[in-house]
Amino acid sequence: MALAVSPLALPLPAMPALPGAETASTAAGIRYKAREDMTLFRFATGTTVAGVFTRNRCPGAPVDWCRAALKGGKARALVVNAGNSNVFTGKAGRETCERTAAETAALLGCKPREVFIASTGVIGERLPTDVLLAALPGLAQGVAADNWAGAARAIMTTDTFPKAASRQARIGDAVVTINGIAKGSGMIAPDMATMLAFIATDAKIPAPVLQKLLSRANATTFNCVTVDSDTSTSDTVLLFATGQAKHPRVAADSPPALLRDFARALHAVLHDLALMVARDGEGAQKLVTIHVTGAVSGKSAHRVGMAIANSPLVKTAIAGEDANWGRIVMAVGKAGEPADRDKLSVAVGGVWMAREGGVVPDYDETPVAAHMKGREVEITVDLGLGRGKATVWTCDLTHAYIDINGSYRS
Amino acid sequence: MALAVSPLALPLPAMPALPGAETASTAAGIRYKAREDMTLFRFATGTTVAGVFTRNRCPGAPVDWCRAALKGGKARALVVNAGNSNVFTGKAGRETCERTAAETAALLGCKPREVFIASTGVIGERLPTDVLLAALPGLAQGVAADNWAGAARAIMTTDTFPKAASRQARIGDAVVTINGIAKGSGMIAPDMATMLAFIATDAKIPAPVLQKLLSRANATTFNCVTVDSDTSTSDTVLLFATGQAKHPRVAADSPPALLRDFARALHAVLHDLALMVARDGEGAQKLVTIHVTGAVSGKSAHRVGMAIANSPLVKTAIAGEDANWGRIVMAVGKAGEPADRDKLSVAVGGVWMAREGGVVPDYDETPVAAHMKGREVEITVDLGLGRGKATVWTCDLTHAYIDINGSYRS
Repeated sequence: MALAVSPLALPLPAMPALPGAETASTAAGIRYKAREDMTLFRFATGTTVAGVFTRNRCPGAPVDWCRAALKGGKARALVVNAGNSNVFTGKAGRETCERTAAETAALLGCKPREVFIASTGVIGERLPTDVLLAALPGLAQGVAADNWAGAARAIMTTDTFPKAASRQARIGDAVVTINGIAKGSGMIAPDMATMLAFIATDAKIPAPVLQKLLSRANATTFNCVTVDSDTSTSDTVLLFATGQAKHPRVAADSPPALLRDFARALHAVLHDLALMVARDGEGAQKLVTIHVTGAVSGKSAHRVGMAIANSPLVKTAIAGEDANWGRIVMAVGKAGEPADRDKLSVAVGGVWMAREGGVVPDYDETPVAAHMKGREVEITVDLGLGRGKATVWTCDLTHAYIDINGSYRS
Repeated sequence: MALAVSPLALPLPAMPALPGAETASTAAGIRYKAREDMTLFRFATGTTVAGVFTRNRCPGAPVDWCRAALKGGKARALVVNAGNSNVFTGKAGRETCERTAAETAALLGCKPREVFIASTGVIGERLPTDVLLAALPGLAQGVAADNWAGAARAIMTTDTFPKAASRQARIGDAVVTINGIAKGSGMIAPDMATMLAFIATDAKIPAPVLQKLLSRANATTFNCVTVDSDTSTSDTVLLFATGQAKHPRVAADSPPALLRDFARALHAVLHDLALMVARDGEGAQKLVTIHVTGAVSGKSAHRVGMAIANSPLVKTAIAGEDANWGRIVMAVGKAGEPADRDKLSVAVGGVWMAREGGVVPDYDETPVAAHMKGREVEITVDLGLGRGKATVWTCDLTHAYIDINGSYRS
């Protein structure tokens, strides 16, 4: 099935070369025909790495591999394939990872544990290892600094547009770059990580510091996006620091101010990529931003926001351009978090419709109805209990989601 | 929008008269045109009552009313309206309940706290109290023993068929009857209770004993059904015992054997009604039964079952008649319950497809594909960890769900 490009798609930004990171993609023919489906990144010696992964209890073999490899904190390569996720493939799946890492290590002259692996696509089918291995030498020869756009395209599955973001940041007087790519459209409800996203920087940052920066940025970006409440078995976010930039030394005990601008830029890259995933949610016609304020804690606000964002009744109402705030009230109530019906307020498009347990007197639906017809819908819920707040993003639930998922595998 | 009758609909069973319970329905014109939308039940003096209600934190005014009234343990009347749920209606909603109870009590010669109230329909619109009150005298005059079918029809909203069930049971040498009706189609994901269901028996059972029987039967019936993961603000199950049957005295300290047959019959009535709700799930084309075995506990098995039953990816695959067991694996893993990928087995239609972390060797999809084309789909998941088990029911997710919910309010 050829999918129409999401009406919420963004153009691919210009991606600058990033010292110490080179990439190549190829049409290995793992599942898709006539498109690139496999990507190799080669990183400079001394590259450090941080990662966050799915909390799904049935993770794919590549997730297991990366979790183990991450303990070393060093990376020289990343191999990604699209079309087959190598999930629930037992011993064969583990062997595929081992052989891929060994072959890549031999080609690039590094250790297998410095090779990271990610796979995305159908669950439960054996990944044809020989096809994968046969493509590696060509990829190793072809890596170049200016192929980020090609990599963003090659990792897509049901995505309708490639997703990439870039930012610059100052560390001391030096300027470093952060490049990131992501894929994701369905099975999106990350729990501490989401789908595939690969970010690289030329900054020189020790792995433990890098991990802290990634985890923090991830919590308010990828972990605040949901398309369908279904947490993938392959969610992987990896951040590589190639160490090619010249800037003041970063250590675990560096003053926080040194990395403040870097943390801001990293958050911006993750934020851009996470919202692109929501914009490309399967069948999405509208991008939905949900602000929750007045909760008893930030965690509670996040849970309430996700309950709204995951409610099929809220999402179908948005698809129907119906400002059905009663369903928002229902979703707040079902979240299981502290909520008091009689202190609750709901706004859509900045217009308060419900306040303190009832509809706002003389509420005029006209501006709200106009807002609902747009591509971006904003919902604000104030619980009136405390100071906890959170923002989450989702998309509407449309017929196209059912079309895509009733026939994805067949 | 006129909805086609669910292909999973069951015919309305013959509903015997139940001594001590009389009912009447009328077209009060609260929201719907040209159909009955309001029902009154009158119960004999001495009727006891038990109830379970939604755990949604934003419950409707009628739920608040019933929770308070239930403390008395006695019931003489039940007033139900469809088309407006009287939820998130503030002080006006509370007053509607108070005036309805007072008027009904005056007509029937009982206390307001012996009048139970339930409303179902749109959230957040003021219920026209005068319309409700004007219909009460006619209803009070019209109550008769043989109108259960009319009541089952009058409480419907997006339901496409009326739901009723009846059983007989022995208490000592006496035979008692249990009649029940229910409504529910969307916003179905009960948490300790679900939607509207009203059950009556002519047995004579003290309220605390009745409550225990109801809570126990509810746990494995209504609480194991989900249509869309959205827990309603109005879920209410009430069980009335009119005490007209002559049987050995039932007390809190009666031997368990005395009520064993009654408990079995009560469970059967709730089971029938709960499955009818799944059969009438908005847009349902298939009834899905999910058995989970080998979990660390019954509670854990239930959570895993509900994670599968609520997964949009599993439900759309079933709508597409695709035996996509990879998505079942994903849903097991996202439940957050103990699960070991490498001990997990999945069967569809009784055929084991995945076992111990991989696809079954020489797995033949032919019989499974045939099973998926039927109206009833059976999924079995064995976690291989312990002895906990549970069965839950849901329906598939189809285009009709989106049609119904994109335009329900407007």
